[in-house]
Amino acid sequence: MNFSAGPAALPVSALERAREELLDFAGSGMSVMEQSHRGKVYEAVHFEAMALVKKHLAVPDDYEILFLQGGATMMFATLPMNLLPKGSVADYVVCGAWGEKAVAEARAAASLGVGDVNVAATTAVDGAYRRVARREELALSERAAYVHVTSNETIHGLQLASPYDGEPFPEVPGVPLVCDMSSDILGRRVDVRRFGLVYAGAQKNIGPSGVTIVVVRKDLVERGRRDLPQIFQLRAHAETSSLLNTPPTFGIYLVRNTLAWFEAEGGIDAIEARNRAKADTLYEAIDASGGFYTCPVERSSRSVMNVVFRLPKPDLEAAFLKEAEGERMIGLKGHRALGGIRASLYNAVEPAWVAALASFMKDFAKSKG
Amino acid sequence: MNFSAGPAALPVSALERAREELLDFAGSGMSVMEQSHRGKVYEAVHFEAMALVKKHLAVPDDYEILFLQGGATMMFATLPMNLLPKGSVADYVVCGAWGEKAVAEARAAASLGVGDVNVAATTAVDGAYRRVARREELALSERAAYVHVTSNETIHGLQLASPYDGEPFPEVPGVPLVCDMSSDILGRRVDVRRFGLVYAGAQKNIGPSGVTIVVVRKDLVERGRRDLPQIFQLRAHAETSSLLNTPPTFGIYLVRNTLAWFEAEGGIDAIEARNRAKADTLYEAIDASGGFYTCPVERSSRSVMNVVFRLPKPDLEAAFLKEAEGERMIGLKGHRALGGIRASLYNAVEPAWVAALASFMKDFAKSKG
Repeated sequence: MNFSAGPAALPVSALERAREELLDFAGSGMSVMEQSHRGKVYEAVHFEAMALVKKHLAVPDDYEILFLQGGATMMFATLPMNLLPKGSVADYVVCGAWGEKAVAEARAAASLGVGDVNVAATTAVDGAYRRVARREELALSERAAYVHVTSNETIHGLQLASPYDGEPFPEVPGVPLVCDMSSDILGRRVDVRRFGLVYAGAQKNIGPSGVTIVVVRKDLVERGRRDLPQIFQLRAHAETSSLLNTPPTFGIYLVRNTLAWFEAEGGIDAIEARNRAKADTLYEAIDASGGFYTCPVERSSRSVMNVVFRLPKPDLEAAFLKEAEGERMIGLKGHRALGGIRASLYNAVEPAWVAALASFMKDFAKSKG
Repeated sequence: MNFSAGPAALPVSALERAREELLDFAGSGMSVMEQSHRGKVYEAVHFEAMALVKKHLAVPDDYEILFLQGGATMMFATLPMNLLPKGSVADYVVCGAWGEKAVAEARAAASLGVGDVNVAATTAVDGAYRRVARREELALSERAAYVHVTSNETIHGLQLASPYDGEPFPEVPGVPLVCDMSSDILGRRVDVRRFGLVYAGAQKNIGPSGVTIVVVRKDLVERGRRDLPQIFQLRAHAETSSLLNTPPTFGIYLVRNTLAWFEAEGGIDAIEARNRAKADTLYEAIDASGGFYTCPVERSSRSVMNVVFRLPKPDLEAAFLKEAEGERMIGLKGHRALGGIRASLYNAVEPAWVAALASFMKDFAKSKG
């Protein structure tokens, strides 16, 4: 039972299919990872994975889908290099550690001829994040190049547009909304049309690490700087269908397998309902514990993907982690910067594991509370 | 029989091991790609892969080994961003398409505050490359930041320091030699001390696509620009042992498996001898064909990794490729920019396949010549 924050659990069927095909893919007598990326065998996988992203994320035709490398961290730098020309400003909304990192890398990109970063809001209080920003708090720039948000803060357990009566995504007329969706992409239905650009490392909900998914409106691709090295230009990747240079072929193949599982599970609405039920189970276990377990996150910002909670004392938390591991529940340790417990409930985490965790929490509280 | 130029054949034992462990790695009950990159299970793989690179490439202690993403193409841009500050110049030696690309991306990086690129030599004649540059041809700058070479030109079939009485690597006292070694790293013994920095996409000789290996002298890491986003700074990756952000964990695991095979095969000297024998077999088949097969590359620049040759007419080449595929020999089509035939003989290509190809070439020449 893998509750890791990422890389995280993958669907067993996606892995079994990979095992089955590992030495002989599609009757080729070779592994998919031995195929030339310019050959028909691999190209079929590449475009099938893209088509599955398009279908399940409901990507409109005026958007490009890109498969890149380097994770969200690479996008933190290349996004402003493309879309924040010198003399312009972008608004960043910060509700956790990943928003902070996005700001830091975008500011460092000033050395590369990039414009200014305005922190339109931060919800940090004494270094802690307990809620997302409300729309009316945003100190937006006039004519920003874009507004950047992080849809789910993995470390702090916060989610924008939380299903627990949460604050919706900001809407700024005429300004593209850019979203780091690494830890909740395809975890719930979102309307891609509300975003100018969405990016995500694959390693939470849609595959292994080493693949970055970018969905970007075509007019923004066109707007990008043309004086950069090709590898940094969204345009160059769009024009070559993400075959500018050798892509991470096996990673993209596993995205294909993972999304085939996603489809077989019933698609986005089924997955969203399943994810919601898993999160409900844990939050109920916390709220019903009479204060033994506490969630530091305000209810309306609670994340469906990462459930963060504390126990009364650090030594109880250590005992909790140890006993949980004895029950084969792993990856529950909170981020090293925060401590506490974190259960990550990405798409491939089975409801039965979550039920087992909730039951374990109840027993543990009874014996130690 | 996979003669692809990359992604290319991998050792069967490396793939079998991956298949065996795919759903249960090291008794964890999970795939290696589901492990947190901050956990002990994955870290053991990460550092074992690094130790294997260190051992088999004989990397001295004053060098860092980095696992990055984005392939050589990413390094084409980030190398000058790190090591070619404004006001300085780097010398690039161009003997084929990859050298050209390295120059183009480094020049484009001028927009990012990078210094100048001097093409110290190009061996192109009417757009064709038939040999590497000789030392005495190099028009070197005074006090260059570095000299850049491509050790093996995959598309054109040229290799620096070819074992066929080839020109050695340049030596420029006091100037670091930087080498794109993507297509022959660990294919033969080289003395890392002769280089300031070596980089290579893994997908030819040491693993799947999606992992870039960088070996760099520590003083050069220190010399790098400090005002870049972290993701671009070699320093940031060195300081975090390539765990700055989520690495491509499964790709690095496969590098581990591939190098474990490399070790079992007898290490670098055994592999070098095996590679040389494979190349000898094909070049002899070409040279003994009475002009039916012709290699456009001068003898002293012939590559051990990529053997390029032509037949008398394009329609004979098409027939050759078709019949070869009927014999289950694939990946032999020359690069789309050049045409002709190319057999890539990377480490995992079996001598028996090469013998079969040579025999096929003889039969084909007899029936069509």
